[in-house]
Parts: sequence; structure tokens; C-alpha cells
Amino acid sequence: MDVYIALVHFPVRNKHGEEVATAVTNLDIHDLARTARTYGVAGYSIVTPVSHQQALVERIVKHWVEGEGITYNPLRSEAFKRVDVQPDVESVIESIEKRTGERPLTIVTGAQLQENCIGYDALRNRVQTHDGACLILFGTGWGLSDKWIEGCDYRLPGINAAGPENKYNHLSVRAAVAVILDRLLGQRDLES
Amino acid sequence: MDVYIALVHFPVRNKHGEEVATAVTNLDIHDLARTARTYGVAGYSIVTPVSHQQALVERIVKHWVEGEGITYNPLRSEAFKRVDVQPDVESVIESIEKRTGERPLTIVTGAQLQENCIGYDALRNRVQTHDGACLILFGTGWGLSDKWIEGCDYRLPGINAAGPENKYNHLSVRAAVAVILDRLLGQRDLES
Repeated sequence: MDVYIALVHFPVRNKHGEEVATAVTNLDIHDLARTARTYGVAGYSIVTPVSHQQALVERIVKHWVEGEGITYNPLRSEAFKRVDVQPDVESVIESIEKRTGERPLTIVTGAQLQENCIGYDALRNRVQTHDGACLILFGTGWGLSDKWIEGCDYRLPGINAAGPENKYNHLSVRAAVAVILDRLLGQRDLES
Repeated sequence: MDVYIALVHFPVRNKHGEEVATAVTNLDIHDLARTARTYGVAGYSIVTPVSHQQALVERIVKHWVEGEGITYNPLRSEAFKRVDVQPDVESVIESIEKRTGERPLTIVTGAQLQENCIGYDALRNRVQTHDGACLILFGTGWGLSDKWIEGCDYRLPGINAAGPENKYNHLSVRAAVAVILDRLLGQRDLES
């Protein structure tokens, strides 16, 4: 199996539930690229329809893959080789389909998701035994719009961190991506 | 059990292996506070001996706990209530001892640690059945100095992310803290 991830800046919700496009941040590009590379993710797409934000991402990626970043920090450069920018989620799916020959399984994540969800262990098993590619979608802002929550093959529940007595769940997307990739792909003690 | 974490800016190593003090970053304060609160961590100490950096952390924490942050984002404010700043690791230990009546178990982490380490599952079991407090140390820069790698009760190995075929391990401290707290404290599917 090849796992791909996408960080989606549109369509997502703001804190009033309205559909918005959020701004790309440099740190999300870096942190998620490093996490993705560490977990052996095949590709990390940054999704934004805003052309100047696309240009910003391309400039940052180019600095690390072709520019001075190569010598400044080769490890960081390595992480950036699997980063691209796409205008929408459909384009991410098409690009994976073009590369692998088939449509990826799509998985949506969100801190508030609880119903009609697959468990982490069941999805870990599904992903690790699937022959084709999988694409995991992460939303920015207050989470992905209904279109993608309804439209994906699988829905992962919000991270059950500290059990029912602690309802607080306010992880950054940088933390959530790391935990979810670890739960789905991380080597476990018994397997090592 | 009560789990505490500390993000250590001194004594740590730089990329040449020299002992240095790193700079505090605003984002580490925010991300780790949110992750710690989500996993029910009892306290998050930011360790720096540099007085103007201590003052910077105190100003940020105050903004969120007493200032405009309370109304701007109550969830964020909640996360900051358990953040403090300490001049060195010894002071963190003493402060926990003062609060709980006994010295905490100390656990050191590091991406490069492999030898004389406890496994994640074994430490999860140890932490969850321990009556007293535990303190987990996270280094910035290129990791904690030998003093603390040698001087703690337990040593956790670097995160075994993608198995032996992928040696790349270059998680940000924001990602590493999230994965380690999830492995030690996260509610698992079977337990829910």
C-alpha cells in the first residue's frame, strides 16, 4: 500500500461553520513534510485554490528541493521531495490515479467526527492490507466541509485521547497528523 | 498517575554535538500546551535558564490565562492554565515533588536513543499503574545532553515509525510529543 496525505485549505469551515479558504502556513508545510517522510508516506499535497498561495508553497518547496536548502539541511530537503501543491481535492485524487493506475481509497479525518466511523485498528488493518493507494484528508480551520466528510470511503473518528472523562480535544493539525499516521502506520513494539 | 512534561531548551546539543541553550518558540508553547491538555497531562514546563526568554513565556501564558486570550479563544486559554516556566530540569522535579509529595519517575526521550531503552508498551503499563507522578523530558535542538539521558529512570527509544526499511526519523518536537503521549496515554480502540 501507498499512503498519501493532503492538507486541505478549501473547502473548510471557520468557527461559525461557514465555508472558507484558510491561509497556508510555512510551518504546516515543514512539519507535515517531516512527519510524512518519517512514516514513509508516498506524497503530501497542499490543497489551495488561491493562486498566490500556490506560488508561495511552490517557492518554499523549490528552496528545499533545488535551492540552498539542500546543503543547509539535507534531511529537510529529503522531506520536501514528496510535497506538491494542488488546486482542489479532486486534483489530488486524479494525480494519484494517474501515478498508480487506480483511484485511491479516500479517508476523511476531523476532531468532531464520531458517527459512522471506522475504528483506528480496523483502518490500520485495511490500509496495511490494501494493494492500491490510500489518501488521507486533513482539514485546516474548523475542519473539512460536508462535501468531503460525506464523500470519502472511510471516516476516522476524532482522536480519542484521554478517555470519556476528558472531553477536551484541541490538537493542532501538526499533532493530529502525527498521531493518526502513527496509529495507522507506526511500527509497534510487538512487531519490531 | 499524574503525567508531567517538560520542553527543555538547556542543556541540549546543537548539530555539532556542543552543549547549547536553544531559543523558545511561540509555536512550541501553543502546540505542546494543546497536546498536553488533550491527553490530560497535569503540567507542562518550559525549561530555559535565559531570563528574557522566561519573561517571554510568562508574557504569552499570561495573555492566554488572564488577558484577552480568554475571550478570543477559551479552548486555548484552558490549555495554557497548566503551563509554567522553570530555569532548569531540577526545578521542574522539585516543583512536582512539592506538589505531589514525592519525586516523580523521570523519563527521557530522544530521536537517536536505541540502547538500554524501555519499550513503549512496557512504559505505558508502568506509567498507567504508577501511583505517583511521572515527568517526561523532551529536548529541543539536537536532543538532550548526556546528563539527562544518563540520569533519568527510564529511556524511551526514538519513535519506530515505518520499520527497519525506512531509517528516516526527523519528526518535529511538536509531532514527537503528540505521538509519544498517544502511545503512553491515548485511549485505544479496544478500551473504548
